[in-house]
Amino acid sequence: MQYPLSPDVKPEFCTTGSYMRLPAQREDALVAIVGLPFDTAASFRVGARFAPQAIRQASMLLFPYHPVHKVFPFEDTRAIDIGDVSVIPHNIHRSYERMETAMRDLMAKGIVPIGLGGDHSVTLATLRAAKEVWGPVALIQFDSHTDTWDTYYEEKYWHGSPFIRAHEEGLLLPEKVVQIGIRGTLNHPGDVEASLELGYQVITTQEMRKRGAADIIRQIKETIGSTPCFLSFDIDFVDPAYALGTGTPEVGGFTSFETLELVRGLTGLNYIGFDVVEVLPPYDPAQTTSLLAATLVHDFAALVAERQKSGGSAAEQTAPGFL
Amino acid sequence: MQYPLSPDVKPEFCTTGSYMRLPAQREDALVAIVGLPFDTAASFRVGARFAPQAIRQASMLLFPYHPVHKVFPFEDTRAIDIGDVSVIPHNIHRSYERMETAMRDLMAKGIVPIGLGGDHSVTLATLRAAKEVWGPVALIQFDSHTDTWDTYYEEKYWHGSPFIRAHEEGLLLPEKVVQIGIRGTLNHPGDVEASLELGYQVITTQEMRKRGAADIIRQIKETIGSTPCFLSFDIDFVDPAYALGTGTPEVGGFTSFETLELVRGLTGLNYIGFDVVEVLPPYDPAQTTSLLAATLVHDFAALVAERQKSGGSAAEQTAPGFL
Amino acid sequence: MQYPLSPDVKPEFCTTGSYMRLPAQREDALVAIVGLPFDTAASFRVGARFAPQAIRQASMLLFPYHPVHKVFPFEDTRAIDIGDVSVIPHNIHRSYERMETAMRDLMAKGIVPIGLGGDHSVTLATLRAAKEVWGPVALIQFDSHTDTWDTYYEEKYWHGSPFIRAHEEGLLLPEKVVQIGIRGTLNHPGDVEASLELGYQVITTQEMRKRGAADIIRQIKETIGSTPCFLSFDIDFVDPAYALGTGTPEVGGFTSFETLELVRGLTGLNYIGFDVVEVLPPYDPAQTTSLLAATLVHDFAALVAERQKSGGSAAEQTAPGFL
Amino acid sequence: MQYPLSPDVKPEFCTTGSYMRLPAQREDALVAIVGLPFDTAASFRVGARFAPQAIRQASMLLFPYHPVHKVFPFEDTRAIDIGDVSVIPHNIHRSYERMETAMRDLMAKGIVPIGLGGDHSVTLATLRAAKEVWGPVALIQFDSHTDTWDTYYEEKYWHGSPFIRAHEEGLLLPEKVVQIGIRGTLNHPGDVEASLELGYQVITTQEMRKRGAADIIRQIKETIGSTPCFLSFDIDFVDPAYALGTGTPEVGGFTSFETLELVRGLTGLNYIGFDVVEVLPPYDPAQTTSLLAATLVHDFAALVAERQKSGGSAAEQTAPGFL
Amino acid sequence: MQYPLSPDVKPEFCTTGSYMRLPAQREDALVAIVGLPFDTAASFRVGARFAPQAIRQASMLLFPYHPVHKVFPFEDTRAIDIGDVSVIPHNIHRSYERMETAMRDLMAKGIVPIGLGGDHSVTLATLRAAKEVWGPVALIQFDSHTDTWDTYYEEKYWHGSPFIRAHEEGLLLPEKVVQIGIRGTLNHPGDVEASLELGYQVITTQEMRKRGAADIIRQIKETIGSTPCFLSFDIDFVDPAYALGTGTPEVGGFTSFETLELVRGLTGLNYIGFDVVEVLPPYDPAQTTSLLAATLVHDFAALVAERQKSGGSAAEQTAPGFL
Amino acid sequence: MQYPLSPDVKPEFCTTGSYMRLPAQREDALVAIVGLPFDTAASFRVGARFAPQAIRQASMLLFPYHPVHKVFPFEDTRAIDIGDVSVIPHNIHRSYERMETAMRDLMAKGIVPIGLGGDHSVTLATLRAAKEVWGPVALIQFDSHTDTWDTYYEEKYWHGSPFIRAHEEGLLLPEKVVQIGIRGTLNHPGDVEASLELGYQVITTQEMRKRGAADIIRQIKETIGSTPCFLSFDIDFVDPAYALGTGTPEVGGFTSFETLELVRGLTGLNYIGFDVVEVLPPYDPAQTTSLLAATLVHDFAALVAERQKSGGSAAEQTAPGFL
Repeated sequence: MQYPLSPDVKPEFCTTGSYMRLPAQREDALVAIVGLPFDTAASFRVGARFAPQAIRQASMLLFPYHPVHKVFPFEDTRAIDIGDVSVIPHNIHRSYERMETAMRDLMAKGIVPIGLGGDHSVTLATLRAAKEVWGPVALIQFDSHTDTWDTYYEEKYWHGSPFIRAHEEGLLLPEKVVQIGIRGTLNHPGDVEASLELGYQVITTQEMRKRGAADIIRQIKETIGSTPCFLSFDIDFVDPAYALGTGTPEVGGFTSFETLELVRGLTGLNYIGFDVVEVLPPYDPAQTTSLLAATLVHDFAALVAERQKSGGSAAEQTAPGFL
Repeated sequence: MQYPLSPDVKPEFCTTGSYMRLPAQREDALVAIVGLPFDTAASFRVGARFAPQAIRQASMLLFPYHPVHKVFPFEDTRAIDIGDVSVIPHNIHRSYERMETAMRDLMAKGIVPIGLGGDHSVTLATLRAAKEVWGPVALIQFDSHTDTWDTYYEEKYWHGSPFIRAHEEGLLLPEKVVQIGIRGTLNHPGDVEASLELGYQVITTQEMRKRGAADIIRQIKETIGSTPCFLSFDIDFVDPAYALGTGTPEVGGFTSFETLELVRGLTGLNYIGFDVVEVLPPYDPAQTTSLLAATLVHDFAALVAERQKSGGSAAEQTAPGFL
Repeated sequence: MQYPLSPDVKPEFCTTGSYMRLPAQREDALVAIVGLPFDTAASFRVGARFAPQAIRQASMLLFPYHPVHKVFPFEDTRAIDIGDVSVIPHNIHRSYERMETAMRDLMAKGIVPIGLGGDHSVTLATLRAAKEVWGPVALIQFDSHTDTWDTYYEEKYWHGSPFIRAHEEGLLLPEKVVQIGIRGTLNHPGDVEASLELGYQVITTQEMRKRGAADIIRQIKETIGSTPCFLSFDIDFVDPAYALGTGTPEVGGFTSFETLELVRGLTGLNYIGFDVVEVLPPYDPAQTTSLLAATLVHDFAALVAERQKSGGSAAEQTAPGFL
Repeated sequence: MQYPLSPDVKPEFCTTGSYMRLPAQREDALVAIVGLPFDTAASFRVGARFAPQAIRQASMLLFPYHPVHKVFPFEDTRAIDIGDVSVIPHNIHRSYERMETAMRDLMAKGIVPIGLGGDHSVTLATLRAAKEVWGPVALIQFDSHTDTWDTYYEEKYWHGSPFIRAHEEGLLLPEKVVQIGIRGTLNHPGDVEASLELGYQVITTQEMRKRGAADIIRQIKETIGSTPCFLSFDIDFVDPAYALGTGTPEVGGFTSFETLELVRGLTGLNYIGFDVVEVLPPYDPAQTTSLLAATLVHDFAALVAERQKSGGSAAEQTAPGFL
Repeated sequence: MQYPLSPDVKPEFCTTGSYMRLPAQREDALVAIVGLPFDTAASFRVGARFAPQAIRQASMLLFPYHPVHKVFPFEDTRAIDIGDVSVIPHNIHRSYERMETAMRDLMAKGIVPIGLGGDHSVTLATLRAAKEVWGPVALIQFDSHTDTWDTYYEEKYWHGSPFIRAHEEGLLLPEKVVQIGIRGTLNHPGDVEASLELGYQVITTQEMRKRGAADIIRQIKETIGSTPCFLSFDIDFVDPAYALGTGTPEVGGFTSFETLELVRGLTGLNYIGFDVVEVLPPYDPAQTTSLLAATLVHDFAALVAERQKSGGSAAEQTAPGFL
Repeated sequence: MQYPLSPDVKPEFCTTGSYMRLPAQREDALVAIVGLPFDTAASFRVGARFAPQAIRQASMLLFPYHPVHKVFPFEDTRAIDIGDVSVIPHNIHRSYERMETAMRDLMAKGIVPIGLGGDHSVTLATLRAAKEVWGPVALIQFDSHTDTWDTYYEEKYWHGSPFIRAHEEGLLLPEKVVQIGIRGTLNHPGDVEASLELGYQVITTQEMRKRGAADIIRQIKETIGSTPCFLSFDIDFVDPAYALGTGTPEVGGFTSFETLELVRGLTGLNYIGFDVVEVLPPYDPAQTTSLLAATLVHDFAALVAERQKSGGSAAEQTAPGFL
């Protein structure tokens, strides 16, 4: 049987519960969907724990072929959906450990995980896994916030801090971190500077609109080159009109078309993982936010398939021995 | 591993897509959940095709033990969830065939299916399957409508006619059919008489309230005795306050407590199948209708487990040879 | 062509915009549906101006025959739907005039209007019309509030005052006014006493539950006898579970079954008009409140048809000459 | 009385149930609104059967004058709303026949119908009608999908196939078919090629954005010239942000402004009919999708009025004798 | 100025953000509303952190006088609303400390706090405060779950464990703990026994319906006598029809009328605090759950005012010296 | 304590009920938030009376620093939130008086009010206040409608007429009135001309898109110069995709990014007041409209702070003596 199950085989509303009805295992899988239903670290609205299943449901609206990259992302990569990591709602550290373990196990096998968050703090767990397998990595962060705030009521681990913690833990190559889409009101004028001081590149929404997608894509590609690279997508990068269901919406954001243009332009990079975070189903009355997230997952897998087709799959070629 | 997956093993929001995270197969399964996502035969609101997945999601709110019958319904019966039958949205007859096949295969193995509709027309397919395995069966129908209207714009197969078609096809033992909860406005004074003429017993909501649950239960048990029996539950039996998400709601219905009292009283019968139909997720803003349906499924399985415990499992003892 | 259009003639979702697709005129009409989309007099939530169309849409779920009274309420009374009175949103008095005129014109022809509010202040306009045709009338008010508060920020006309204004204007026979279902917190201990001082009978929800429906029905019938009588139904009489979409919900109310029992018991009275008010579609996510209101309209028409059948139609027999 | 009823005559919330409260008949009508509440052919979400009434309700937000084309579209064309075709939910072919008959009767009288779908399969019925009156016609299709898939589980008639069936039945002039807005994932790389092989022009969203509206408009006008032409608008042409309530949303679509620019640019064509399809009210929490559809209807009528004003009404001048 | 601000002074929709627009401080306050917006300890749905503000908003629908107890609950007790305790979303223990401090400070002044949860774990913090001021107290718990599960993935502090933790910490007088309304599926048969083993009285929904409200009230009063007593109300005590917006709804529950009968019957007790928990605004489409919670707060204050009137205010008479 | 309360001090979901938890009074306040919960003058959808509290709730998603203008808008201006004006729902004139008084009192003290409507008629009351303090003022109106219709059913005061009434009352300097964003269908071709005849500048959406933001900003600045100026923002200026919750949505509008570009460009003007109107919470399922409105308020305050920083605060420098 071919996967994802074609709508020719079974109507799309006959779900199996997995993303596009992918199987839980296949030989030589290159890509794995992983649910990370953890939202305890959110500071305002909560509910991202239900995002993995909502994104999977919305994925039933998608078809197997990607017409821009001209690949079958899930077939070409023999993608699997391993279900949700069994996080522990009230315990950030134990949840991190479990997410880290799951992600590391995949990466160590040369599989590129696509995480379905969860609040943005889940990315820290994934980056810890990546460090073990790949060493410090490059990062492309789509987000309206830098998420490099330090503490929240003296708590160090929350969804506003993953990228300062990642820095402290040496998980990232700071000069190869690009944060795009930043906008909105701030706590302090220094909020953005905090990112710059870590060595990150920060490109605001305003600057992006002035320069255009092509120039941003060029800068990211030049910055990152062939370094193993993680792409983290906070759904609040897009405007709330396109993502009603998110935790800390910021008006003045991107359209879904602009977003896809950017993501689809980021070809040829050595991706070792992706995630899409901060989808909140209880605030998504027509499931359009989940559909956008599901579409991004399709695009992420297509980036892997596209690179593999051109002979450059990160996972197969460059994965250092793990343990 | 024990099933349903205990919330002690994995948080409830980590769904696998199946009812209470049951596996797709187990040895000696006595009960099987089956999705019947067919709603083409509905005459007014549509959307019941999304009910199977919504009921499964809502099932995550349930726990494995049934405190009234004092059984573990799904463990005791080694229940499975075989997923959705691959119906064909626009074709009633081809969909019936597929549903009938799936149901017959289960019944022939001595498994009691619990169908998750779909509109009420899916019951006809299941009763056809039952006929093949069990011969004509008894029927307990919870419903605000008799569903014995003949045609709809000359169409014979729709969600208002399954129980007249079933009669014509000899699927039922008419003197062992009890329709309870009937109420609401009618097309013609003869609408209810049509059921009586078929030989069915019809107990209206008004009569039920006057007589009380115990008396209704007694009548049903006396009528049906040990005959193989199918229980079909149209969610519009309950009041729209308790089931916002249904296709043809009727005010003046039962509460969820009253409903459970009735269902829980119907012990000791020789159930060969169940279904719960007409849940419409697009009209169920807080998923309470799906939760009620999921709870009924728990109760149905408990009725099987309860009977098995007292030595009387229909499936094990009386299934005639099939083929 | 028979009206209401049978679902045998046209599917129920093919609306014409009128209640149960009734025509705008028929000879010898005894009952008329009238939209009163006025909500300027509401003190808290607003939106009842959209109730007439929402109730009409929900009416598509109903069938022509009333199985309890054994009548075809709309066919037997040759009922019509004359559409909405063209109220003026910002002007209470000009709106009253237009509603009064429309209602009076109907009543003067011996037609029993069923008004679809609107906030409860619309009843004052209807009672003024009734006065002109019938003189002071009896009143049965289903409501959780007495609506006999005097002023609201010195404004005399608002949805909390229709029944004190009606008293002042001599529109009611105070000894033949029965207010049932009263409950909830009050502004002052004297709020209910205000009604009693006007000579009205007030039966609280608590008292009703203690005495039972039969006793309440008996009291109402004895009180009103054969006097021309108006029945005004504020949807907040029922519990918010059954009527999510209303302006000033009060918990602790009646179920839809209890409500229908009461309404259906009030046979044999000399009804000269009805209304159902305070339905707010923007707060009615699954249209169940509109459905309940539409069902009540069906019952109101059935009360007229039932009385006509037993030879006692108020309109035909006792309407005094108007002009 | 002038139509549409001006808000000066009756407040906008006083609906009559028809689009902008148009009458059901007028002499010399040039444009007719027709409800086509058929959604059985949908493959995923259902509910478009409620779109005609939702679009009519939303039309109450519109005013009679079109400021871009400087016409009174409905007054200038003496437009009517003939209500809904009485489709039969479960039977595609019988429903097609009824829709075809209704559309043909209008077209034969020189009236330009504006169909309110329904799923996209309703267009096939309309094109059959057009063939009878006009012979094969040109087609402008706004859509994110080509809808030239062949079968769905071996079913030939569904909402993904109208434009391959229309080709087979000779309803279209293939070299005068332009499909615009195509985007999204596909079943097979050949999905779009299928349209090209039929001889259709396919312009993807990506290409459109590169070329700009003016160039697209020019291409369409050059392609179609003065040939009788049908415009079919699938609401999923726009982005889900602008059309939350649709059956198979595709992210990455157009804004409402871009859409109006395109539609308003398509002047001077010989329109013989229009439709707007795939609006799903149960997924449209603030009725914005219905409002967009209602606005498009206003624009469609304006295109007819504009052409008539410049002396070129298709209907009046070129309608061949029917029968 | 009188508080709560009368709707005679300012329309109800002119909120100040506090419960019924109470002031933040008054001399001799006997009752204080306190927001406890903590929901990190929830195991399934989250969002109760928004309940305090939602309940306050819904309180605008209430009036100052309680007609059953014949008191002005907030005026008679000079009630205040001190706003929300500044909890820390990700840290259970630090949040407990802050809630405990706030509650203890109130109790030590002889003020009876009414907590607005929050998930049910907030009650543990309040009971710790009570212990410091009052010593171990009696408990009346309205709930569909006993909340005496031990751990959740080895976590001891979560919303399913407050009443086993409270027992371990000696905060309760076990023989004076009554849990009412228990129902629903269980993890293990021993779930309820766990409560019994702690010495608590458990009365299931089924038993309650058999015995009737009066008998339950009698048992509670006899059990608790004049002991200082805390009343904790989990909104899932009522049926989901009446409380759509809650975290772990259980069908088969109580109506709002039944609930009020029970609460209103519990007069004469020595209340030292109350809370209402587990309201989840994101799942409460028409705010009816918040309204029910707000009404319960009104009733709780009325119980204090009623007892004070009859000379028995716990706070004034029996508060032991604190510090 | 610093205001707005930093999320460092108290989590954002701990609301006090005021905009960004501002205090009700501070010394030397330059900016004041004022709720104007009046919606009786609306002609179609109603519910803007709940906008002030919804906007305040949404403001909890904002942070204190404005990164574009590089100011702390609320700290720099010592901003306050004085709560809601106690309007009288059913009485336009008495409500105007109260709003006018509140606004005048603020303006007379040199405070710049930011009104939270309410329907657009509230602006008339504010402009009356401005006249008393400042004489006739300039006006920048963001809106899809000119709101210079004369009467509505002979009523002069409604939400479609504030800017013709303001003209008649001499509240505006007509040559310094700029209406931008106008679009949509009209009652009569003369609707826009009516504005032009009053001497107002009208820039349609279409023209704006052609000319670009910079040119529009230039025109506005040149037109208004240093004249005391009021900015009124009707939320229907933006597209319904970005503002689902409004009373008379018009498709084809602006994005939130475009809107912010415009507002942020309007620096250096002598603002004496602002308002944002026509937000309707009952139609705003994910509160994104309220969030956009709250963000605009942040921007308005930033414009005041920015000007103050550059030495040009209107209020401080040019306020003529009042009384």
